[in-house]
Parts: sequence; structure tokens; C-alpha cells
Amino acid sequence: MRLIFIGFGTVGQGLAELLLKKKDELFSKYGIDYSVVGIADKLKGSILDPQGIDLAAALKVVQSGGYLYELSSKKFEGEALEMITAVDAEVMFEATYTDIKTGEPATSHIRNALERNMNVVTTNKGPLALYYQELAELAREKKVKFLFEGTVMSGTPVLNLLRETLAGSTVKEVKGILNGTTNYILTRMEEGLSYDDALKKAQELGYAEAVPDADVLGWDALAKVTILAKVIFGAKERPFDFPCEGITGISAADIFEAKSRNKRFKLIGKIWREGSITKASVGPEEVDLSHPLAGIMGATNAITITSYELGDVTVVGPGAGKFETGFSMLVDFINIARE
Amino acid sequence: MRLIFIGFGTVGQGLAELLLKKKDELFSKYGIDYSVVGIADKLKGSILDPQGIDLAAALKVVQSGGYLYELSSKKFEGEALEMITAVDAEVMFEATYTDIKTGEPATSHIRNALERNMNVVTTNKGPLALYYQELAELAREKKVKFLFEGTVMSGTPVLNLLRETLAGSTVKEVKGILNGTTNYILTRMEEGLSYDDALKKAQELGYAEAVPDADVLGWDALAKVTILAKVIFGAKERPFDFPCEGITGISAADIFEAKSRNKRFKLIGKIWREGSITKASVGPEEVDLSHPLAGIMGATNAITITSYELGDVTVVGPGAGKFETGFSMLVDFINIARE
Repeated sequence: MRLIFIGFGTVGQGLAELLLKKKDELFSKYGIDYSVVGIADKLKGSILDPQGIDLAAALKVVQSGGYLYELSSKKFEGEALEMITAVDAEVMFEATYTDIKTGEPATSHIRNALERNMNVVTTNKGPLALYYQELAELAREKKVKFLFEGTVMSGTPVLNLLRETLAGSTVKEVKGILNGTTNYILTRMEEGLSYDDALKKAQELGYAEAVPDADVLGWDALAKVTILAKVIFGAKERPFDFPCEGITGISAADIFEAKSRNKRFKLIGKIWREGSITKASVGPEEVDLSHPLAGIMGATNAITITSYELGDVTVVGPGAGKFETGFSMLVDFINIARE
Repeated sequence: MRLIFIGFGTVGQGLAELLLKKKDELFSKYGIDYSVVGIADKLKGSILDPQGIDLAAALKVVQSGGYLYELSSKKFEGEALEMITAVDAEVMFEATYTDIKTGEPATSHIRNALERNMNVVTTNKGPLALYYQELAELAREKKVKFLFEGTVMSGTPVLNLLRETLAGSTVKEVKGILNGTTNYILTRMEEGLSYDDALKKAQELGYAEAVPDADVLGWDALAKVTILAKVIFGAKERPFDFPCEGITGISAADIFEAKSRNKRFKLIGKIWREGSITKASVGPEEVDLSHPLAGIMGATNAITITSYELGDVTVVGPGAGKFETGFSMLVDFINIARE
């Protein structure tokens, strides 16, 4: 399998480390052999090498602050999109930055790779939340796979679980804690920190960005909810078509008042059906302390899938992280290579 | 796909109802068409029909207390094993009773079906806990599938999750609440019932058998733990090679004393590695109230899978039930038919 990496930041590097560490295991367990033939990154430079790039050397050079084209592989002078058009590969890993307003540049990368009969694995929420139907249709037409497990809960299985291990079930509702940063902030506020101090703490730990809007205003959870609405119920809506409220309106006093009534504030993303209409929302909810989602503390994520066949099935696990998200791409890759 | 049912009790009937209900959906979504050509049941009689049995009629006759051979399909005079040898089918659903001491008659059914190149789906813990390696090896040799999702947590995904959606992860430890009956009894005892009253309540609800040993002495959880040890770590041990203790030694006083220290008794089954050695056990443990497993109340099951890549991933869901277990067989069937 010839692979290309589009975007070689934290997630791409996490995947690269896992691929290296598991090279022998992938071969012995699944008969998978791979070679990385291209890496394109806006900041770290781009290289192309049909003979195979030395992935360990590539990691080393970028992790010590260097550029990919310092390696012996041929420097590629051009945008990622040109590499996708020029290269001969079976799988593209797309892990550039997320823009949930335009979905670019990731959507163009994915569209072009699919057009050229490449299987695509991505962790990028933008293209999914905006253009899932079009891209999934294109993948079907080209008879290639388009997988994106990492977009919802990083490596914690949600989408593959719905597709593979809950295949044949009829989902009624999906509801969860889909943003670790806000759950961390709410947890610390319950322990006595003010919103500002809890946010500062989250920023120190790398959970929250300097401009924390995408997390605290609920947009990140909204993108994930939209992906679930599209994949599970075929919804056509875009993220901001659904109601969305973040956690900035919740005070420490609200949290303690709720606790006195055996409730706990959680930022809940959910999708459900009303007749043939798909509904979705993101917003703070007072969850009863006896509910499984109430016990999810810190940066952990969780999702409850309610189906007619099984009732509630809840999955709890990490929702972010270099290796956790890199792992989601590894699982998707194994699924592609197994077929 | 030509299917046979060996065992047509609660689970077999649950599967049959789901197959009927989802016939159109299976075809439109996955292109799966099926025909049931044989049903063998020790109590309800056996029928064989290469032209296809009327499954709705079969359900109706057994659910009104009749015998399968009252239908127009040909009565089969012989044991299930003879039917397996006589029939031409692609998939066998094995759902006879569980015997975790001998694994029979299910093991012979499965061995013979695999020998005859049939794919096998079972919910029977006996053959797995005792002969997993041999049967899995035989399936590989014959290039057919041998799936048994329902043996651990009924339709709540555990084994398929490990195989498909956590493929490529390296598991360190698996730990869970694998028996709903004992968890229900412990929950009711914490609410104030005595052990005897809680057991009686569980029996009234159909959670516990008249002779409750398999549940309350931990044997059911032990069989599941052994299956996990074999599938995940390749353990060669049989169920009673591992230490096993049930809940009969726990008093109401123990439960309240633990609670005063923020602990809760749970019957925990676990498997882990010490160097290259696989360890496993079943026994009551005092779980900290902040641990996700502490919040699992009533007949619900839960399992925490700890891997190097993801840390803890916990799955919570039903562990028994007619449709829940029937659904596990449906998922396994879809996985077979998709390939």
C-alpha cells in the first residue's frame, strides 16, 4: 500500500509513529505492508518519493524543528493539491487544519483524492460536517473507502462501531459529551475554580486554544453532532442550521445550585428523530447524577446510542490526543487494507 | 444465503423475529437475501426444507406451544448433528443450551458445521470457553467465519469491537461487570433488601434461574472472562483454571460499610498480562465510587478495555435479553454476508 500524508502536524505525526511502531505487527497480523510515498505540509515542507520516504527520518527532522526537504527524498514544489494529482498512491491521510465554515482546504484535497481513486482517511471535521453526502457518494462511485473515525471521538470507536458492530440496528437517538475541553472546565468549576481560572488551566494543559471560542461556544461539539446527523440519519443540514449554545453562560453559582438538586451541568450534543425529521442541538443540560453521562469527568468524552434493538449502549473514552487521534487513522487504514 | 437454526429457544426466536422484521432492510442496505432451510430443536421438533421454511409460520407455531413439524416443511427425524451433515447451507446459527463443563452438544454442532465449510454464529459460551483455539483454527483452515459476539455481553459490542474497531490496538487489561443478575442483586441489596429477598426479586423478573448457582457463584462471568482471555491473549486455560468467587459471601452490612468509605461492591471479571503470562479472575471488588464501573446499576453490563494507544475505553449496555442476544447473531450474520 502506497500512502500519502496531507498535513504532518500533531495528528499526522501521531499516526506516523504508530505506523512505524506497528510495522511488523501489521504485516504478521493482517498481511499489510506499506510505503509512504509523499508528505505535504504547509509549514514543514513537502517531499515526494515513489521509492518510499524514510518515515522515521521524516519524524526526526520535523520534531527537531527542521524541514522535510532536508531529507534525501525529492522536494515537492507545489501545493498539497498538486501532489495529490501527481502522486500514485492507494491511501491519502488528510490531517490539515479544520475550518468548519468553509471545509477548505481539506475538502478539495479529499475530493481530488477520491476522484483519482484513492481511499481517504481523515480526522478533519470540516469536510464531513459540510459535504459528507457528496464525498461519500463520490467514494461509492469510485469504489474506494472514505473513513473518518477520528472526527467524532478521536480513537474511541463511534462511527466504525455504528457501521460495523451495530450494523443492522435502528438508531433512535444519540447523545453525548463530545468536547473534552468544556467538560474539563465544568469539572474544575464544580471543584471550586471560577470560569476564567478553569479556562486558564485548560489552556495551560493544551486542552483549550488561546482563542477558545470553538470549544467554549460549542462549535466543536456542533460539528461532531452534524457529522453524526448526516451519517446516521442522512441529514442535509450544515452545522449552524442547528441550535448551538456553549458553556459561557454557566456560572459557578449555577453549578452549585444544580448540585443541590442532584444535577450536574454537561454540554450535551444530541441528535434524534421527530417523525421523518432529524433534530440536533448542542447546549448545556442539567443531567441527573444517576445518568451514566453525569459521571464523565475531566477531558473524557462519552456517547450514548439508543437503538430499538439494544436500548442504551454507552461508549466512554478519550476524545482527543496525538496518539488517540493518530490511532483512529490507523484503524481506518487497517479496515481499508483488509479488504 | 441458506441458513439453519440449531436450537430454537428464546435466542433463536429473537434472531428469527429480527430477520423477518429486517428482511427488506437487509436487502436494500447490504444486498443480503436469505432463506432458512433447516431448524432443529430438541423440544420443538426439527424440519428441513431446501425450498425454504416459512419463518413467520415457524415462530407462530412454537410460540403457541406447537411443534415445528406441524408445518408443511418436511419433518426431520434425527439429531441436530445429522441435520448439519445432511443440509446444504452457508450459515449455521447455534443457540442450544450452554454447558460450560463439557461444551456439548454445541461444540460437536460447531465442529461439524465448520468441517462442512459452513460459517458459524453462536451465542453459546461453552464451546468458546473450552475449545476456542481448536474451533477458530478449523474455521481459518476452512476459510469460513466463526463469530460469537453474543457470548460476552449479548448485543452490546465487545468482541467485534476488539476485532474491527479497535484493530491494531495493544490491549493491557480488560475488566468489567459481566453478569447482570449479580449486579442487579447487589444493587437491590444496597437499596436495603436482604440477599435472599434480592435473589427472589431477580428470579421473579427472570434474571436468575431457580437454581441460581451459575450466576451467584460467578461461573457465568468466569466463562466470559475465559473467552476474553482466549480471544485477546491466546490463553490456553479452561474456566476453572482461573480463581473464581461469587457474591454469596457479601452481606448487607459489608455493602453499607463499604459505602461509608465511598466504595461499592461489584462482581468484577478481569484479564490482564503479567509479562508473557495471562492472568484472569472473577470476584467481588470494592470499586471506588468515582470509577465508571461503580455507576453501573441494575442488570446492565459494562467493560473497560485498557490499551496502550487509547487508555481506558468503557462500553456500557445490556448483557442479556431475547432481542439483545438475537441482535448479536444478526450483526455477526451481516458481517459474514457482507464479505
